[in-house]
Amino acid sequence: MNEERLVTQITPKSEDFSRWYVDLIRRAELADYAPMKGMMVIRPYGYAIWENIQRLLDRRIKASGHVNAYFPVFIPESFLRKEMEHLKGFAPEVAWVTHGGEDELEERLAVRPTSEAIIGHMYSKWIQSWRDLPVLINQWGNVVRWEKVTRPFLRTTEFLWQEGHTAHETFEEAQEETLRILEMYREFVETELAIPVLAGKKTDREKFAGAEATYAIEALMSDGKALQMGTSHNLGQHFARVFDIKFEDRNQKLQYVWQTSWGVSTRLIGALVMSHGDDSGLVFPPQVAPIQVIIVPISIGNWRESVLPVARKLKDSLQQAGYRTHLDDRSEYTPGWKFSEWEMRGVPLRLEIGPRDVKNNQVIAVRRDTKEKSALEMSGIEGRVGEMLVVIQKTLFERALSFQKENTREAENYEEFKKTIEEKRGFIRALWCGGEECEARIKEETMATIRVIPFQENNVTGKCVCCGQEARTNAYFARAY
Amino acid sequence: MNEERLVTQITPKSEDFSRWYVDLIRRAELADYAPMKGMMVIRPYGYAIWENIQRLLDRRIKASGHVNAYFPVFIPESFLRKEMEHLKGFAPEVAWVTHGGEDELEERLAVRPTSEAIIGHMYSKWIQSWRDLPVLINQWGNVVRWEKVTRPFLRTTEFLWQEGHTAHETFEEAQEETLRILEMYREFVETELAIPVLAGKKTDREKFAGAEATYAIEALMSDGKALQMGTSHNLGQHFARVFDIKFEDRNQKLQYVWQTSWGVSTRLIGALVMSHGDDSGLVFPPQVAPIQVIIVPISIGNWRESVLPVARKLKDSLQQAGYRTHLDDRSEYTPGWKFSEWEMRGVPLRLEIGPRDVKNNQVIAVRRDTKEKSALEMSGIEGRVGEMLVVIQKTLFERALSFQKENTREAENYEEFKKTIEEKRGFIRALWCGGEECEARIKEETMATIRVIPFQENNVTGKCVCCGQEARTNAYFARAY
Repeated sequence: MNEERLVTQITPKSEDFSRWYVDLIRRAELADYAPMKGMMVIRPYGYAIWENIQRLLDRRIKASGHVNAYFPVFIPESFLRKEMEHLKGFAPEVAWVTHGGEDELEERLAVRPTSEAIIGHMYSKWIQSWRDLPVLINQWGNVVRWEKVTRPFLRTTEFLWQEGHTAHETFEEAQEETLRILEMYREFVETELAIPVLAGKKTDREKFAGAEATYAIEALMSDGKALQMGTSHNLGQHFARVFDIKFEDRNQKLQYVWQTSWGVSTRLIGALVMSHGDDSGLVFPPQVAPIQVIIVPISIGNWRESVLPVARKLKDSLQQAGYRTHLDDRSEYTPGWKFSEWEMRGVPLRLEIGPRDVKNNQVIAVRRDTKEKSALEMSGIEGRVGEMLVVIQKTLFERALSFQKENTREAENYEEFKKTIEEKRGFIRALWCGGEECEARIKEETMATIRVIPFQENNVTGKCVCCGQEARTNAYFARAY
Repeated sequence: MNEERLVTQITPKSEDFSRWYVDLIRRAELADYAPMKGMMVIRPYGYAIWENIQRLLDRRIKASGHVNAYFPVFIPESFLRKEMEHLKGFAPEVAWVTHGGEDELEERLAVRPTSEAIIGHMYSKWIQSWRDLPVLINQWGNVVRWEKVTRPFLRTTEFLWQEGHTAHETFEEAQEETLRILEMYREFVETELAIPVLAGKKTDREKFAGAEATYAIEALMSDGKALQMGTSHNLGQHFARVFDIKFEDRNQKLQYVWQTSWGVSTRLIGALVMSHGDDSGLVFPPQVAPIQVIIVPISIGNWRESVLPVARKLKDSLQQAGYRTHLDDRSEYTPGWKFSEWEMRGVPLRLEIGPRDVKNNQVIAVRRDTKEKSALEMSGIEGRVGEMLVVIQKTLFERALSFQKENTREAENYEEFKKTIEEKRGFIRALWCGGEECEARIKEETMATIRVIPFQENNVTGKCVCCGQEARTNAYFARAY
């Protein structure tokens, strides 16, 4: 009998990836379904990851000169109607407030699906002169999009995110900001979440409703499907024109500002599950793991007297050293049950300590990523634990990078393209003529979309993988969440 | 001409407190009106205070064993209808979502005015056994209450807050939690916001809709009106019964859990303005000030070459030492303008540095609270600045405490009570029979309400200040926001 299966009751990943994903999220108490369709509750174990993401990303946002603010959750319908592309993009997904208390409202209010419209309105009041620029504001908050098909963390009616909204004097400055943020996202996701990404530009068909250009980072999940991890938009002067955000420039001439917006969301938690998880459950990179080190005392003999005090001291000294450490001292579960429970919950490092270990002044360390065991001496253990967490973080990234590389393939022609997508999934790098017809046909026939157009691919020569006409660029295709 | 008035364009506090409050909040860029009635935008300078409050309070919430989570912003109407008192209390203030995209919803969704109902539902799924207890969850988020009369920070249609929701095995544990949190709030507000409070119990008339008992901390604003700063509710088993939150107790018997809930909000930012502000503008306690130290170079002669490099070094070393420091190096404003600008914005400590100071290896320090000037030697300045910030924090608290004491008066009879409220405002401590009739009559005739019933006042003897019958307790009365 496989004890682990008994304990975790999770569909094996290899058997049914979708079931595995949902089972795991609920069983590990990352999230639960709310009673309203498409909504979820982020439970403490899942929310702790979001707090780590917030802390690590907010630090980067502030270091690059941005400040946080808070704008209303409601946006008047007339504001959304001002930018037609924007409206068309979001109207089908908007939750509408029509009554306040007993009274019907004169104008419907949208629960914000994104905040360009309300922020544009406020910027038009705040910005008068080039001296007021750039405005570099970020907001952490909740947004609502009425989605038809939902999945915990990946696509839910409400989600948490950050949305940056900046205003600049020139197009060039806005473009620099757009790409600076894209690079910040890439570095953040690869460093802290240990997930390698492809960065590049979206096609016009896939860009944000109301943007001049959208850039994105895309990662490959371990089932071979792509997930958009974050987007950075150059908004041009679209919103400035409709919300009348003008400034007097350095030559005393009135100009519209140039804007950007950008965001990442709680979707990143889903990415962590799908990138690193395995048949034993979650595997969290140490940098964002809610618990980095789990201590499990081996409950034999008089362990409460002999082992527990040593385990407690160990916990205190690891916490003191700054590691998120938990001691599982429950009597009602066996050590074996606890091992698989905390493996399932993705804790990067387990320290087992029994009577013999106490005598030998050591603990047994077990890595979640490789399941390797090693004995660690008690003296100086804080340093050793720190080193192991660094190695685990690095190993997870390298493993995911190998997977990404192995699953990024070229396709010379459409037959090969279709065969690869059908049989292997993953990213396909292929030449594209730049035409919307080919893009649409590929999506229709293979369910693959262009995830990003990579940077610095100006000198391509060859034929479009779909129509065979002269290609304009390389593109990365994949089936995506 | 008074340069300061020219600069700040703020109604003097002594002339019109309400205008002063609103002028100051907008002029100092703490917040701005949103285009929707009763809603505001929290601007970066105001949001930075909220971030400091969050950081300092979240640390206390976690240290006492609580964890954060996130529940949906929408609550089905039927859930709110389950607890009748709760419904009656909140229904008039609820914003209702009736449409998702193009479709009308089968059931209206409330935008959460508070989360007891949805959290109660989830707890009924998560709690089975006494082993699952206590559940100690907190949430940081936004809530909406459709208020008729609004004022920035104090009462707005949407506000930000934290709401704790706990579940326990026994009434006693829930009561202990309720009072532990009240004490946490008191200590937090007095230590970090430098605002002294009265702690006690609310009357049945003033308690939370659906609570067994509500406890609160109340502060006196500098116009003599009281402001409720935070509440902690013992919910008894009210929500457990309607949401069926049962657990198997230690004797294998099914029991309803005992619950608490508690919160503080962005209202605390309004309290900071009204407690410490003066005719020159805001005065922030160093612990929560967005900027703790402002450095103003004296722009004469070749200051950009002689003074600015020294000012920059000073800024770097103060930031290094952990102080939130800003250098105002703008050329387009005079030092005098900057002095009153940063006074208006409430920065606790100003450091002026001119050519002579550079020569003498010193800066001129000016305290915002007392406007006292002193020369500080450059060497070891980080320590001196730290000491001064501690003194300023302490002085603000003591000043507010003196004000509170001077404005807390006894009233022997109803004539005296009415005269004091009318002429002096402040807190009135008076005996009360415990009857709702007297409470209502006092409110009707004097606009004063019972803010709290103090603890440990069991052995009162005397007559009710209103009806002259035997008194049951002392109570603190005030006109309130």
